Amino acid sequence: MLGGKMKAIVKNENAFGAILKEIPIPSINENEVLIKVQAASICGTDVHIYNWDQWAQKRIKTPQVFGHEFSGIVEEAGKHVTNVKKGDYVSAETHIVCGTCIPCLSGKQHVCTHTKILGVDTAGSFAEYVKVPAQNIWKNPADMDPAVASVQEPLGNAVHTVLESQPAGGSAAIIGCGPIGLMAVAVAKAAGAARIAAIDKNDYRLSLAKKMGATVTISADKEDPLEVIDVLTGGEGIDLVCEMSGHPQAIDQGLKMAANGGRFHMLSLPENPVTIDLTNDVVFKGLTVQGITGRKMFETWRQVSHLLESQLVDLTPVITHQFPLEEFEKGFDLMRKGQCGKVILIP
Amino acid sequence: MLGGKMKAIVKNENAFGAILKEIPIPSINENEVLIKVQAASICGTDVHIYNWDQWAQKRIKTPQVFGHEFSGIVEEAGKHVTNVKKGDYVSAETHIVCGTCIPCLSGKQHVCTHTKILGVDTAGSFAEYVKVPAQNIWKNPADMDPAVASVQEPLGNAVHTVLESQPAGGSAAIIGCGPIGLMAVAVAKAAGAARIAAIDKNDYRLSLAKKMGATVTISADKEDPLEVIDVLTGGEGIDLVCEMSGHPQAIDQGLKMAANGGRFHMLSLPENPVTIDLTNDVVFKGLTVQGITGRKMFETWRQVSHLLESQLVDLTPVITHQFPLEEFEKGFDLMRKGQCGKVILIP
Amino acid sequence: MLGGKMKAIVKNENAFGAILKEIPIPSINENEVLIKVQAASICGTDVHIYNWDQWAQKRIKTPQVFGHEFSGIVEEAGKHVTNVKKGDYVSAETHIVCGTCIPCLSGKQHVCTHTKILGVDTAGSFAEYVKVPAQNIWKNPADMDPAVASVQEPLGNAVHTVLESQPAGGSAAIIGCGPIGLMAVAVAKAAGAARIAAIDKNDYRLSLAKKMGATVTISADKEDPLEVIDVLTGGEGIDLVCEMSGHPQAIDQGLKMAANGGRFHMLSLPENPVTIDLTNDVVFKGLTVQGITGRKMFETWRQVSHLLESQLVDLTPVITHQFPLEEFEKGFDLMRKGQCGKVILIP
Amino acid sequence: MLGGKMKAIVKNENAFGAILKEIPIPSINENEVLIKVQAASICGTDVHIYNWDQWAQKRIKTPQVFGHEFSGIVEEAGKHVTNVKKGDYVSAETHIVCGTCIPCLSGKQHVCTHTKILGVDTAGSFAEYVKVPAQNIWKNPADMDPAVASVQEPLGNAVHTVLESQPAGGSAAIIGCGPIGLMAVAVAKAAGAARIAAIDKNDYRLSLAKKMGATVTISADKEDPLEVIDVLTGGEGIDLVCEMSGHPQAIDQGLKMAANGGRFHMLSLPENPVTIDLTNDVVFKGLTVQGITGRKMFETWRQVSHLLESQLVDLTPVITHQFPLEEFEKGFDLMRKGQCGKVILIP
Repeated sequence: MLGGKMKAIVKNENAFGAILKEIPIPSINENEVLIKVQAASICGTDVHIYNWDQWAQKRIKTPQVFGHEFSGIVEEAGKHVTNVKKGDYVSAETHIVCGTCIPCLSGKQHVCTHTKILGVDTAGSFAEYVKVPAQNIWKNPADMDPAVASVQEPLGNAVHTVLESQPAGGSAAIIGCGPIGLMAVAVAKAAGAARIAAIDKNDYRLSLAKKMGATVTISADKEDPLEVIDVLTGGEGIDLVCEMSGHPQAIDQGLKMAANGGRFHMLSLPENPVTIDLTNDVVFKGLTVQGITGRKMFETWRQVSHLLESQLVDLTPVITHQFPLEEFEKGFDLMRKGQCGKVILIP
Repeated sequence: MLGGKMKAIVKNENAFGAILKEIPIPSINENEVLIKVQAASICGTDVHIYNWDQWAQKRIKTPQVFGHEFSGIVEEAGKHVTNVKKGDYVSAETHIVCGTCIPCLSGKQHVCTHTKILGVDTAGSFAEYVKVPAQNIWKNPADMDPAVASVQEPLGNAVHTVLESQPAGGSAAIIGCGPIGLMAVAVAKAAGAARIAAIDKNDYRLSLAKKMGATVTISADKEDPLEVIDVLTGGEGIDLVCEMSGHPQAIDQGLKMAANGGRFHMLSLPENPVTIDLTNDVVFKGLTVQGITGRKMFETWRQVSHLLESQLVDLTPVITHQFPLEEFEKGFDLMRKGQCGKVILIP
Repeated sequence: MLGGKMKAIVKNENAFGAILKEIPIPSINENEVLIKVQAASICGTDVHIYNWDQWAQKRIKTPQVFGHEFSGIVEEAGKHVTNVKKGDYVSAETHIVCGTCIPCLSGKQHVCTHTKILGVDTAGSFAEYVKVPAQNIWKNPADMDPAVASVQEPLGNAVHTVLESQPAGGSAAIIGCGPIGLMAVAVAKAAGAARIAAIDKNDYRLSLAKKMGATVTISADKEDPLEVIDVLTGGEGIDLVCEMSGHPQAIDQGLKMAANGGRFHMLSLPENPVTIDLTNDVVFKGLTVQGITGRKMFETWRQVSHLLESQLVDLTPVITHQFPLEEFEKGFDLMRKGQCGKVILIP
Repeated sequence: MLGGKMKAIVKNENAFGAILKEIPIPSINENEVLIKVQAASICGTDVHIYNWDQWAQKRIKTPQVFGHEFSGIVEEAGKHVTNVKKGDYVSAETHIVCGTCIPCLSGKQHVCTHTKILGVDTAGSFAEYVKVPAQNIWKNPADMDPAVASVQEPLGNAVHTVLESQPAGGSAAIIGCGPIGLMAVAVAKAAGAARIAAIDKNDYRLSLAKKMGATVTISADKEDPLEVIDVLTGGEGIDLVCEMSGHPQAIDQGLKMAANGGRFHMLSLPENPVTIDLTNDVVFKGLTVQGITGRKMFETWRQVSHLLESQLVDLTPVITHQFPLEEFEKGFDLMRKGQCGKVILIP
């Protein structure tokens, strides 16, 4: 047992913001692993918690160490743990699943009916140490940059979203160019999508989308996405629309730009119910709308690891900022302004 | 050329109802086929036209012979026609497709971007003769009852809806027990669905659903479908939900009763846009929502023919009424009251 | 700890046959479960062990308790076991998998690269007690007959074989009508296959195949299977061929009877390499040949359970004999002669 | 009608070789199109005809104009032709299909049971003019190099072979690095395969494979492919094996290098039946062996066109030689020696 104290970012009160404070290093049970964090990246979910929005107020119980994307070195493994050992360089799946519900027993653990989320329902990774169940561990190649290793988790979202279809030789639209949207552009490119439209209102992000491989970028404030798509595809529409914005108007446009017989993969989480013209935009089109959550465990992790290893996906342009853990407020400020790609905190 | 006159049901004015009148027998071009109708069944779409509702007012140009489900004997084949000849016993696909758009060139003719519908955009089958493009013809086995042969078209909708998944050994819910919903119950049963819930507000239709093979019937007015489903599936939720009602509340319940990782196949055509809790009911669930239109050309027709031939699907309980063409008003009255399964008109 | 002695059928020497003897009741570790066996059925693999054929000589280390299909009541659960408890009525998956190889991490545990087989690599279920890892347990409904519960494992092979395609509305051929072949006939029927051909040389088995739902039975000694198939399918060929005989000539015929674009699912284990006309029978046809092993864990088990519960599959005609454990030699004699369906031993 | 004479390469006698001679320009029927050939590429099939091997002796009826890969300008369209017109820049699918068999009616025209092949069963494209059915035409973008446009047909084979799986983030092996194998390397790379092994005995071809994107090249004469694959994949085996050699030993190695649960796509046409260890290499592995023939009509053509347009696939290194039609013997000599990629003839 390690014992002792560590620094961690804690959501301490039911209000905006967070604090850095010293708390005990977590102690692990026989099936868990304790990891010394090398890099932890900020997710949109973390910004919701920081902002203390409606969702966070309902879901988070303070005090809570948050953060769930990370990489690090195993410090200690529980006595029943056999798949990983002290000294291993690892990241982790953040869905902690039950293993016994029907989805878990059918190879669909990512939609486990009892999912708990690291850093939301359990103590997270914005800290010097984090503990996770051994079955959640993913081993990293020795030469992978800790910052890159940390963002494998959101890259997994992008990979899961894009690869539920066969994008090679077809067209794809990525709606919403936050970090996962940017990664989705790169994944679509790596997987052979021939015409890629990236859509957002933020010019900074659209310029990053161009770097990641977008064929065209569409500034939704200044142009009509449907008109640009019509030109791009010669009126055929988009084979694969990836919805990552959560905005009702963007969702409506996304459904309308999809080709007959096309696919609409939705990773975003709109705050409120959305009104949809099912008859014209889904039924007559023979459209397939698929909800995407988490990453396939662990098929997606393997794809992520291979796409990085082979340099078919290069995340360098997306990882725009790194700060020491102590300067977390700088990172959250950038995220709130949308003037960044991925922000990494280094404990 | 046949020449001469025939009886037909015509939407003659921009108002409720229709009339029987004598009109010229259609003349065919070199790629078309003229068929002497033996049986023609009434579809919900025909009732929309009869009722002259909002959709019909926008879409139909009077005068119009309507009706599109039928069986009959080929009377004459155009001179370039090679796949069918005078005397053949046939039915027909009602989507008249272009053959040159991307869906048509990708084996998805059922979502052709230039689809015309028989009896909606062209003269229909509530008549002694109907003409269709030769490429739309499907040949029937000699011993198939003309009434059954006529309803292969809507059975094709049910087969397309159910067989886009693998229902065997799983659970299915059919929401909306009009004739296609009733057929979907039978198809789900024939394809091995182990637990089938049929949901409607009409007791007459629910009793037919029981005959077609439903494990449980749920009267949506009197019980909470979600509670009954919870008991039926031991809390697992439904693997395959088939939406055939078009009612916003039923759609909402259908999404909520679907299992994580499940499928929601939507054949219905809601009159207005529908508000959906995408975040909780689609994204977190990893649900797949698939719009279903028409029938796969002609994969679905072959499945339909085989399911009937093998008696795995028996439509006898669904075909509740037959009338001479002249008594079409009786048929439409029954359809408008929902006190029937399928109604057949005999010219 | 139970301690004490139990009766078991033991492959005691490197020679034909087996003996019944008293041996210690197995002791379990913290992740295992001890089950009091209520019914254990004889698999073809058990006959190989009994016969001490070439395969058995290479694979089995005597003394070995064999048998792997069973049902029973949990007597004791290891202290880390949470998914099952004393008194539960269970059966078990017989592939004991590693959980850490790439197939296991990709939802394909049935092709785990480190698979051990119950009753082959570990002590089996022809005994009063058997121990299995807790993760292999499948719970049975209380009202399931122990004999039926025992044969869920081979039924799972049949379900896995048939349901890797969509058989509804198509044609299927089952080559080899041993117990799993007979079950495959029933599963194909339950899943909506419209034309089912069952092929064997043994008239007893063909008569059982007829009872299970075969449209035609083909006595391979007396008729040319390809000619009968040609008539059955009007020259179209078979959509789904299930190979369960392992005979080179039957495999050749099976490939030839498959339709262009069809599927050939192979569960059998030919003793020697087989010569195949890949060019004409696989490549030009665009045929898909899929190897089938085990059962999907646990998607197949759920399908099996539901197909039995709903009585869509009725195994009564296949379970032809039951004997007390002591009379195992009668059962093996019948199996060796092929004059039986499934034989159950009752400890 | 054009009338007049043209130069063509004719298989004139039942012997090795071919001659250039003047023959009448083909006259078209009402559903056909006459094309002025701009480029025609030599396929392995053409070499078989040239060599007058066993297959050619059985299949070809002399005199026969051969060749089937081409690009050109429409000179004349039959009077019923609506999808293409004089002056269009086109290539063509070489499978001439019936449109009425079950595969054709199920979106699988590439396995039509009545397929005729351009340049094998009908007059081919090694000529100044070629005629094809209008339904076989594929329109090219104006700026596509005629040599590249001509090799879209074999690129289609490579695309069809690779994209029947999802290669992104996985491993692929291409066995046999003739022109289609080289293209398959490029397609696998473009579609996101992370580890690509190219296997051949010819160093010239292996060096081209490296240029096309192979991660490793394996000289089957000098190294053990299975050992190299073992290192490349860390013992995991290959997710997607593409067999393009037709050699029995290579097929055996290909099956053995495939991962459990992997895919083996076979485009090659072994001259004789091949002996396969089905039990260990297919069944226990849960391997899927899929025969690949032709190109999906026209889904594959669209993918081909998009992959070229987007420059995700660059065929420049594969198109190694161009000759005037008159110098066809130089081209055939190179092809027979294997010292070339794709050879183009310019009429």
